Amino acid sequence: MIKPVLKVISHPELEHPVFIAGLTGFGAVGKISADLLIESSKAQLFAELYSPYLPDYVIISEDGMVRLPKYSFYYSRNLERDVIILACDTQPPADSLEAHYQMCGIALDLAEEYKCDFVVTMGGFPTPDTTKEVFIAATEQELVERFATEKSGIYKKGRIIGATGLLLGLAKVRGMKGISILGVTSGIAEDHKAAFSVFKFVTQLIRKL
Amino acid sequence: MIKPVLKVISHPELEHPVFIAGLTGFGAVGKISADLLIESSKAQLFAELYSPYLPDYVIISEDGMVRLPKYSFYYSRNLERDVIILACDTQPPADSLEAHYQMCGIALDLAEEYKCDFVVTMGGFPTPDTTKEVFIAATEQELVERFATEKSGIYKKGRIIGATGLLLGLAKVRGMKGISILGVTSGIAEDHKAAFSVFKFVTQLIRKL
Amino acid sequence: MIKPVLKVISHPELEHPVFIAGLTGFGAVGKISADLLIESSKAQLFAELYSPYLPDYVIISEDGMVRLPKYSFYYSRNLERDVIILACDTQPPADSLEAHYQMCGIALDLAEEYKCDFVVTMGGFPTPDTTKEVFIAATEQELVERFATEKSGIYKKGRIIGATGLLLGLAKVRGMKGISILGVTSGIAEDHKAAFSVFKFVTQLIRKL
Amino acid sequence: MIKPVLKVISHPELEHPVFIAGLTGFGAVGKISADLLIESSKAQLFAELYSPYLPDYVIISEDGMVRLPKYSFYYSRNLERDVIILACDTQPPADSLEAHYQMCGIALDLAEEYKCDFVVTMGGFPTPDTTKEVFIAATEQELVERFATEKSGIYKKGRIIGATGLLLGLAKVRGMKGISILGVTSGIAEDHKAAFSVFKFVTQLIRKL
Repeated sequence: MIKPVLKVISHPELEHPVFIAGLTGFGAVGKISADLLIESSKAQLFAELYSPYLPDYVIISEDGMVRLPKYSFYYSRNLERDVIILACDTQPPADSLEAHYQMCGIALDLAEEYKCDFVVTMGGFPTPDTTKEVFIAATEQELVERFATEKSGIYKKGRIIGATGLLLGLAKVRGMKGISILGVTSGIAEDHKAAFSVFKFVTQLIRKL
Repeated sequence: MIKPVLKVISHPELEHPVFIAGLTGFGAVGKISADLLIESSKAQLFAELYSPYLPDYVIISEDGMVRLPKYSFYYSRNLERDVIILACDTQPPADSLEAHYQMCGIALDLAEEYKCDFVVTMGGFPTPDTTKEVFIAATEQELVERFATEKSGIYKKGRIIGATGLLLGLAKVRGMKGISILGVTSGIAEDHKAAFSVFKFVTQLIRKL
Repeated sequence: MIKPVLKVISHPELEHPVFIAGLTGFGAVGKISADLLIESSKAQLFAELYSPYLPDYVIISEDGMVRLPKYSFYYSRNLERDVIILACDTQPPADSLEAHYQMCGIALDLAEEYKCDFVVTMGGFPTPDTTKEVFIAATEQELVERFATEKSGIYKKGRIIGATGLLLGLAKVRGMKGISILGVTSGIAEDHKAAFSVFKFVTQLIRKL
Repeated sequence: MIKPVLKVISHPELEHPVFIAGLTGFGAVGKISADLLIESSKAQLFAELYSPYLPDYVIISEDGMVRLPKYSFYYSRNLERDVIILACDTQPPADSLEAHYQMCGIALDLAEEYKCDFVVTMGGFPTPDTTKEVFIAATEQELVERFATEKSGIYKKGRIIGATGLLLGLAKVRGMKGISILGVTSGIAEDHKAAFSVFKFVTQLIRKL
């Protein structure tokens, strides 16, 4: 395997879906949010992305079964809007810039194939500010203003590192719109409370798009 | 040399061979197992893989002869089943994920050319658990159950790092079946006892496939 | 995104423009010089270069707007000579040699498309020598002699590291001419005085080309 | 520049030339040997190799002239045998395995274009053994035996790291013959004595080929 391989399992019919990514990162907020979303929406796996930039090991299950680390794409038609959800086991190493750009590019290619033009990324935001549940940033002024509330602050003058930021930035270059929802978290331990806040916010956001 | 170069020495006629890899790693278990298998089965070298991802040095023999590091492919028709055996001097650096994926991909391409659909990888498993001789993990539930015994435990909830795991994971994505045999070893010194356990296990396994 | 993407915003008509680059580096001298030049010449953005070798984050504005880091190309017809100005947010990591060569190559491709055959690079030069305001080095003996003055010394026997040097070296291989203007700076803090010296020098240089 | 660029300056007529490489390394032995050979044989520059894997800086001369680091190819018809000599300013970083393989591959491509089938590499060998002036290793048993003397020992059971070894190993895979001459040196300071021993040895070797 020299190039990433997208293994397509099925071709669901989706109507103008929203693309939602919850990847590994601070407090595992993105990952747990994605898991909550997949479970609550009874989402189905329809594509897997393998890549030579992912770690060179296999993951062994409780039964002794091996499998490669991967990015997994799920879809659901059970919410107010059809959705594609991206989840993953792990990401390329932090210093593999090219790998991150490539994986995010392939994910957005798949999203665009399904006529998706709106991207939501979910992650954690390590901050001592506990007056907010989540912080948001977006590709358009209008989106930030529309979704900022007392509990959801605007993330100003900073950076969103990794795929959570990159997916949004790359989407913007392609002319797509998008928003990032970052759950306030205090550390690197799995933060289920922060993930639930993000999950709740995204569920409501889908209704309003 | 920009891309890996597979130098084919001969084109043996093999009937539905099993592909068996024993690469460098913990306790050199995989490498020594492969050497034992090559010697006992009177296997013949038939292909060499050179790669720009392998170290940039030449190895000098006792006679002052130089040669590049390489992956070597042997075959044997002297066992219950025809086999292709992969051995090597060294591997790409641990952090060259892309290189590992590429080398394993080329090895599996060669295996598939010979209509091989079963992969065995041999390696070491550093653990203080001495009630077992080897641990096994596989691409299918059926394989794990069939080959687990009192002396060969099932490797549960873990990772197999490097080519020993990757070959199996990549084989699975291609629809091939496979099993990994990991000899219990206590350290990083060459562990001939562990390698012999793996060799023995694999020899018996070939009979039953 | 696997390869760099040049997003062209407009196709200005330029007459034999000079290509001027002011990138990030020592004392931010290059970057600030470019900003001064863009402002004073009322330059317009006409192309953006995104690259998988740039950092994998998005930059968030004061309003919560996200965007990818990029190289920006401006033009101006308001000076004695038409100019293309290259500015940037950030550069590829220092050890990504290939990335630097590639980004500089794309920038020079764009310059050549506009029939540009003269390159000016602006940067900082950390030195305790305060008898000079700037140091210069060039692709041709004639240029060095013509532009060296009491305040602008000749940079002898050294290296210009990063894009500031590379753009000039690559330009020379392509048969273009060029000069590097390095503002004397004492440290890594933003050095506006050094940047102003470089800006002043370049403004005068444009008149004489 | 995304790929290496070979800039050909002239196309000399050479009769079955020997390819001789003296690159940077231990005690600068290879580099100084190459310089001695170029000077004594009045060799002419006929090709330059630029590469995105070489350092991203320009070298500034005493006159303030800039140029990129490069590999330089010289030829001479003034010795017993026609020769192509490879010299360089610097090499790719030590951990850029792919870069070393690529640069050496391009150098050998050029050599083969001129019907060269014999490669000599010159370098340093850090060892306290001062009974020898040089150590040799080769692609063929016959060569080692023919050129080993009291002062030139056979290098047994070791490695030749970097381009000095790699050029020989890659040449062997291509079916070319070759020998490596390593001057005994005590440290990393420029070792002109060791370089002179290598130069002397190579000058005599050319006569006997």
